Amino acid sequence: MTPIKGLVLAAHGSRLKASNEEVTEFTQVLASSLIDQYKHIVPAFLELAKPSIEDSIDAAVAAGCTDITVVPYFLAAGRHVREDVPEIIEERQKAHPHVTIQATPHLGVSEALKQAVIHLL
Amino acid sequence: MTPIKGLVLAAHGSRLKASNEEVTEFTQVLASSLIDQYKHIVPAFLELAKPSIEDSIDAAVAAGCTDITVVPYFLAAGRHVREDVPEIIEERQKAHPHVTIQATPHLGVSEALKQAVIHLL
Repeated sequence: MTPIKGLVLAAHGSRLKASNEEVTEFTQVLASSLIDQYKHIVPAFLELAKPSIEDSIDAAVAAGCTDITVVPYFLAAGRHVREDVPEIIEERQKAHPHVTIQATPHLGVSEALKQAVIHLL
Repeated sequence: MTPIKGLVLAAHGSRLKASNEEVTEFTQVLASSLIDQYKHIVPAFLELAKPSIEDSIDAAVAAGCTDITVVPYFLAAGRHVREDVPEIIEERQKAHPHVTIQATPHLGVSEALKQAVIHLL
């Protein structure tokens, strides 16, 4: 069976609505490039905003995804990347044993990220 | 007089040393591309780690920089980007009226950032 792929962009979340909308907007920009590969592409927030990462994973499962990739949308691997996001994924994997849920590395140090900063200057 | 340029990469900061070291490492990667334009390129942290943004700006001034650019190294414009970093810059600008201190936009939504995420998949 061909896997049906879902992508969850997992951001920190902010008290400011505009900040969370920016993540949602970025998810749409991402979706425009990835629509052929991922059936379901959604934002999610670790705290302070909705939908939560749990809810977005569950929604991807409900939408029929069998293979869900979570992108930790963080610049450095602090506690959120090392502990909080993996714990949520492990818990949702147990809740949905028939689907595959995996995380990519966080953004970290990359040539592309360097270019993103240089473009700001 | 030719301006002497400094760059401060202003990140959030983490309790985890490895996370802060990642920002420092990224600053070095950035410096390898920007060394011809910026005399002084340093990381800085809003909270939980040292050097602070204040300290890194002051160090750039002490190193002779006359034109200091602060890059808010954040993915979305929450309170830190909209209030905390601008307040620090305003305060340091008052303390150093003979130099120019300005901020770029934060990373936000960009083609380069989209590519950085796509490279993770």
